[in-house]
Amino acid sequence: MMFGPLIEEDGVNFSLWAPYCSRASLKLGQEIIPMDRDEMGYFRVKAEAKPGDKYKFVTDRGEIPDPASRFQPDGVHGYSQLVSPLFPWEDQEWKGLRKEDLIIYEIHVGTFTSEGTFEGVTHRLDYLSDLGITALEIMPVAQFPGKRGWGYDGVYLYAVQNSYGGPSGLKKLVNEAHKRNLGVILDVVYNHVGPEGNYMNAIGPYFSTKYKTPWGLTFNYDDYGSDEVRRFVLENLEYWMTEFHIDGFRLDAVHAIIDNSPKHILEEIADVVHRHGKLVIAESDLNDPRIVNPKERCGYGIDAQWVDDFHHSIHAYLTGERQGYYSDYGSLEDVVKAFRDVFVYDGRYSRFRGKTHGRPVDLDGCSFVVYIQNHDQVGNRGKGERLSTLLDRESLKMAAALYLLSPYIPMIFMGEEYGETTPFYYFSDFSDPELIKGVRDGRKRENGQEMDPQYEGTFSSSKLTWRIEDEILTLYKQLIKIRKEYLNCKRNTIIHRDDGWLIVRKDKVVIIYVFKPTTISANIDGKLLLSSPNSFPKELRGEINANKGFGIYII
Amino acid sequence: MMFGPLIEEDGVNFSLWAPYCSRASLKLGQEIIPMDRDEMGYFRVKAEAKPGDKYKFVTDRGEIPDPASRFQPDGVHGYSQLVSPLFPWEDQEWKGLRKEDLIIYEIHVGTFTSEGTFEGVTHRLDYLSDLGITALEIMPVAQFPGKRGWGYDGVYLYAVQNSYGGPSGLKKLVNEAHKRNLGVILDVVYNHVGPEGNYMNAIGPYFSTKYKTPWGLTFNYDDYGSDEVRRFVLENLEYWMTEFHIDGFRLDAVHAIIDNSPKHILEEIADVVHRHGKLVIAESDLNDPRIVNPKERCGYGIDAQWVDDFHHSIHAYLTGERQGYYSDYGSLEDVVKAFRDVFVYDGRYSRFRGKTHGRPVDLDGCSFVVYIQNHDQVGNRGKGERLSTLLDRESLKMAAALYLLSPYIPMIFMGEEYGETTPFYYFSDFSDPELIKGVRDGRKRENGQEMDPQYEGTFSSSKLTWRIEDEILTLYKQLIKIRKEYLNCKRNTIIHRDDGWLIVRKDKVVIIYVFKPTTISANIDGKLLLSSPNSFPKELRGEINANKGFGIYII
Repeated sequence: MMFGPLIEEDGVNFSLWAPYCSRASLKLGQEIIPMDRDEMGYFRVKAEAKPGDKYKFVTDRGEIPDPASRFQPDGVHGYSQLVSPLFPWEDQEWKGLRKEDLIIYEIHVGTFTSEGTFEGVTHRLDYLSDLGITALEIMPVAQFPGKRGWGYDGVYLYAVQNSYGGPSGLKKLVNEAHKRNLGVILDVVYNHVGPEGNYMNAIGPYFSTKYKTPWGLTFNYDDYGSDEVRRFVLENLEYWMTEFHIDGFRLDAVHAIIDNSPKHILEEIADVVHRHGKLVIAESDLNDPRIVNPKERCGYGIDAQWVDDFHHSIHAYLTGERQGYYSDYGSLEDVVKAFRDVFVYDGRYSRFRGKTHGRPVDLDGCSFVVYIQNHDQVGNRGKGERLSTLLDRESLKMAAALYLLSPYIPMIFMGEEYGETTPFYYFSDFSDPELIKGVRDGRKRENGQEMDPQYEGTFSSSKLTWRIEDEILTLYKQLIKIRKEYLNCKRNTIIHRDDGWLIVRKDKVVIIYVFKPTTISANIDGKLLLSSPNSFPKELRGEINANKGFGIYII
Repeated sequence: MMFGPLIEEDGVNFSLWAPYCSRASLKLGQEIIPMDRDEMGYFRVKAEAKPGDKYKFVTDRGEIPDPASRFQPDGVHGYSQLVSPLFPWEDQEWKGLRKEDLIIYEIHVGTFTSEGTFEGVTHRLDYLSDLGITALEIMPVAQFPGKRGWGYDGVYLYAVQNSYGGPSGLKKLVNEAHKRNLGVILDVVYNHVGPEGNYMNAIGPYFSTKYKTPWGLTFNYDDYGSDEVRRFVLENLEYWMTEFHIDGFRLDAVHAIIDNSPKHILEEIADVVHRHGKLVIAESDLNDPRIVNPKERCGYGIDAQWVDDFHHSIHAYLTGERQGYYSDYGSLEDVVKAFRDVFVYDGRYSRFRGKTHGRPVDLDGCSFVVYIQNHDQVGNRGKGERLSTLLDRESLKMAAALYLLSPYIPMIFMGEEYGETTPFYYFSDFSDPELIKGVRDGRKRENGQEMDPQYEGTFSSSKLTWRIEDEILTLYKQLIKIRKEYLNCKRNTIIHRDDGWLIVRKDKVVIIYVFKPTTISANIDGKLLLSSPNSFPKELRGEINANKGFGIYII
């Protein structure tokens, strides 16, 4: 590793890539130790130090924490701390994640439990194992400003958030998860860094001068100095995989990763992750098959990508909402297309985007992650409403069945499985007054969020209440069980669809979704496995008078 | 066509894409005729008018010329003029350009002849035909500010430069070229528009808000409204092909065309051009095989691309120059690599770029255009020196043989073929005082050009003198003849290279390049076809004591 301190028996190798600086020293306790600069702009020094010691770098561009700090116990502006890479791992039995088995559960550490820490999550692992999911997906843990935040404003890619329990907390969580046969996927942000606590921009060409994102500076992947920036990111992945036993990654907003190099950084990311036998999933709103296509089909070889089209189609159809991006969706036809072709916009004109969007994709369902809720789809609503407060009970259950039994990889948003109704807001804990005002105004203007993101109560009222609705939780467990027993992520076949209903067949399983009461003639015989409500006949044969709901049959 | 006026029997359909405007009218003579707006932001009106009539649009964002104007007789700020699409074409016998036959000749219309017009070029067509080239490549003719300029600051993609002779001048030139069996390639700029005379930015999302180029605003190919912008560019290509019988294009600086869409605009450009059976060549400094790879090999399918690595390797090796980007080149090994692998930087670290550059490419030579001079390589030198003033006579001749007999498509820079020695400077004719100062200072600072770009004498001293050096011209004709008779753009084989010499063999042709006097043992028998100097033996056999120069043998 080129980045970050390397702890050896006879001392610690400190390094700092700071090509804009002509001088740099290590500040360790009371000592100031000059560092040597090489021609690439790396400063290095070996010094006596041990885990727990705090340090900073003193450069001619100011005193700064280590951009590759392993821990920022006092936050983004404070000292960096040395962390021992050693950990008493007990996960030797863990076999790793297989894409085909993925049932993901997205959590935000700060609000998942009352503790708001990795340790709190650990206490819920038996519950999650019992639920039937196969992987936790943890929203970003790279050190962000303050104690409260979604994590997308992280500025220390290698430091685990102090308020969550730091690096040892995360290792313990992964260890406990693996012992329960649960994988851990980490959400990582390589498209931008947060606006507060970024000391990198002053010391080297870490960020692009050609491209920008709506959220701040974006990494320099293709210009002068980009080899080192790419290494900074690629080593970060290796760091999580080797030192934290992380099983996979969710790449935040890859549409905002602009790289005009012959080898796109996403392709390189996929290579590095696969070299370690791990998985990588992209959040992409490009509807571009290149992201997930294998290399031999001209793609980057990312294992899977999120499909907002699937979410939006179901959400707009079931809620009737048409505001913002939902204006592009709303018909059952769109739901059918999402089942059939993955992308609803695969070359169609999008009014919301004001342009033709997407390109057709042709891969099996294991390359796509779907959800009916996630942190964005809930939290970017001004009122942070969960689907449980937007839909009637039967529609909510149908939404669950639609995606959990879909040919795609399902992802549950924490609390959804038991019918949580508390909102999930956007919250932050910046310290810069101008930034605070900007975020507050921006959230109000763009998302209609009246709750002040900085207010502690906005955060605390987003915490799960754990008031479990047994009916919903039981249904989720049943659906997950059926998925595991009968289904996989090969493509479904839509047998039939008409105004207000849908029949999805896959191998021996036939699922009838009825959105409004109707009569359906079945040409196949089948036995009922599960239905909601209970009014579906036990035998699938001849005419069915169905109420709103769904019935799952084995034929 | 959606863009520009459409002349019909019963009137003219005027149209303007101006989604930022709520009102627009046609100003035709003394008349102001209101236009209808559709929901996409197109304003349209049909009015009585005829070729030669002048017009503007009056909008709530100001009075503007037509962004798709066919002619700006009074320059970038003046009225647009209607042009008849009819022309008495006489090129029915012309068979079109084949990539395999390309021998390109790059001209700048303003300095190619004393007239500085298309008509002036026409008078030299017999000379060019006699030289043996197969295609003229014309530096950009889209209307740019003033009377003097390289053309890369054009702002009216559809209007032919008034000072060159306007649209009818270009049509006459193409017609005369085709009659002489010469193709015409047009240099088109789709990565940015010039800083003066751009009225588009005020009326619609023509330009990206996410990306920027060093030269100004870049087109919006992937954001809100980008369908129309893409159409604006794609129709422009169709316009040149159908209304001007243009045979191919040279796309300026495609590395500055940033498009994050699933279908890159370059792929779409290739599709449109190929649908018309024409050719498209890219200027790319990415060393990215994706540009020229065919679709089935994950590329955009552009027919060929410029190879600066080939130029830089030969230039640095022969001149000994190491300033600027030449610092990355200089050894004979680089020349060999350019012959063997096309890209010298195909994944190697470039000190000048401060990053690893390029990716290996594996296509035959017909996908690459090479040169030992072009407008950039000569004109971006502060003193605008041509190779004829930088090299001794034998080296100059060797440079010519190296590229004209290479496995790649050769491109001659106007005047090079007869040993022109007059410089080719950067020149401009802006009217905005601040811009003039910026360009003047920038050229001095970045290129070391002391000659004021705005000074008329800088332009006029860049005009070819046509003081022909018979020895050089004769050599070019001989080399072209040999290329046509014996060689094509399949890959060459390097037989051997040692310190100071190089033997290139292809089929029956063996070329010996001697950079410093040496003794070479030949294992093959051959007969001398051409050499310079005359000291090469008539028969290739056994040991050859060779002076600096080259010998071409048939074996």
